[in-house]
Amino acid sequence: MKFKQITIIGVGLIGGSIGLAAKKHKLAGRIIGVTAHKDSLKKALKRKAIDGGTLDLKKSVINSDMVILATPVDKVIGALKKVLPNLKKDCIVIDVASVKGRIVRDAERIVSSKARFVGTHPMAGSEQRGVDKASSRLFSGTPCIITKTGKTDRTALRAVKDFWKKLGSKTYELSPREHDRRVSNISHLPHAVAAALSLAADESSLKFASTGFGGTTRIASGDPDLWSAILTDNSASASADIKKYSRQLEIIGKLIKAKDMPKLKIVLSEAKKKRDKFAYGK
Amino acid sequence: MKFKQITIIGVGLIGGSIGLAAKKHKLAGRIIGVTAHKDSLKKALKRKAIDGGTLDLKKSVINSDMVILATPVDKVIGALKKVLPNLKKDCIVIDVASVKGRIVRDAERIVSSKARFVGTHPMAGSEQRGVDKASSRLFSGTPCIITKTGKTDRTALRAVKDFWKKLGSKTYELSPREHDRRVSNISHLPHAVAAALSLAADESSLKFASTGFGGTTRIASGDPDLWSAILTDNSASASADIKKYSRQLEIIGKLIKAKDMPKLKIVLSEAKKKRDKFAYGK
Repeated sequence: MKFKQITIIGVGLIGGSIGLAAKKHKLAGRIIGVTAHKDSLKKALKRKAIDGGTLDLKKSVINSDMVILATPVDKVIGALKKVLPNLKKDCIVIDVASVKGRIVRDAERIVSSKARFVGTHPMAGSEQRGVDKASSRLFSGTPCIITKTGKTDRTALRAVKDFWKKLGSKTYELSPREHDRRVSNISHLPHAVAAALSLAADESSLKFASTGFGGTTRIASGDPDLWSAILTDNSASASADIKKYSRQLEIIGKLIKAKDMPKLKIVLSEAKKKRDKFAYGK
Repeated sequence: MKFKQITIIGVGLIGGSIGLAAKKHKLAGRIIGVTAHKDSLKKALKRKAIDGGTLDLKKSVINSDMVILATPVDKVIGALKKVLPNLKKDCIVIDVASVKGRIVRDAERIVSSKARFVGTHPMAGSEQRGVDKASSRLFSGTPCIITKTGKTDRTALRAVKDFWKKLGSKTYELSPREHDRRVSNISHLPHAVAAALSLAADESSLKFASTGFGGTTRIASGDPDLWSAILTDNSASASADIKKYSRQLEIIGKLIKAKDMPKLKIVLSEAKKKRDKFAYGK
């Protein structure tokens, strides 16, 4: 399926990469980008992530068959409310936010019978931001979770799944609740863990730090605005996961304190075994 | 300074990389490698990480001006005891272990007036092992901590520092105690944290995991034998750091639970600020 016109609201790393990939795979006749600042718009146009751009959010969706809400998680619903009056009848609206429960619930209520909302979450990204870092290959081989509820339009769901597959993603269907529980475990918890590790580091010892510290804390360089919104939006699951994690660390800590090398080795072997099963983008 | 003959005991990732780099920079007339198994020896010779090799640990040090103990942390002292009778008078002996307190104390006592021991710890490596992964550039621009005690021979210390600089490292002098305290913070703690995160992951959610999870847990794929030895050897510092870390994570967890986005943003900004100061190999 090809869309005559797609509007991407928020042309940063994710929005920009969607634009580049959609153009590469010819998924849209025309792509309109919306940004909050003139500079970002210029950059997006220069990178050819969009065919045309505007700062006028409200008018940006006129005549679009698909609208992609690619703003930070706490701005999605606000943006949707603003474009609502100009949404084309039966237009497909998707978001790309990292938390789905609240957004999908509110978005379905807002678009109601006017448009068709499908929540999506491409598990791709970086601690970096902006269209400068965008790539048409960002989604290649990466998971994209698509949420399905009792209100989801089945035709729109198929079209959205097809869209993400063509961008290179492996698609999965989950309920918003299940999404938030699973993504907390493998994305939101790691962020909290990395941030705490950065905070626990002695600043005067950083000059001795190596790739181990670098990899383990890399995501702590992520945007505090984005991540404080994500973690508090997924509060219940993230809190539960931090507790679960703390118990595992406590076990490891006790074995280290007791200098119990044989038992520690067993625990570290279990950790290694599970980590070795992770095979992103393969 | 050039050594006529160097013996490297343990030709894995680190030992093999020392061999490759020392040959590249012509730091030795001849490099002898010792491994425990014939296969590893063949691989090391094939990669030209060493000029000659032997499985006979005891005899391997005869006539060498420098002996490099590049075994796992719990095998260093055992290897040193075995080669002791054949050490050349005033030979320089170094190790490359990740924990220094016990090893430096024992090694200084063992070599006594016969040879000159200097503890070293190149902060370079990988979750991978073996001479196959060795590289002459492994140490380029990376920190190497050299330990200094009241017993350290100053001429040997200068020669060892010069050696590591020529391999590409930035050298730092610390007491063994200070080394263990600092390295716990930026290397041993991250390992415990990564292992706990891997253990806390739901196996059925791993298919949704992305580069964030991958980076944060990468070092959990490290060798359980090596790491259980390191963490229990540095028990006191590592336990203290896990406690310090847990307090930071608790603060983050409480803010997430309370959905306190403004305060969480401040904490995540502090974490980002510190992480952004890390500039390995730059």
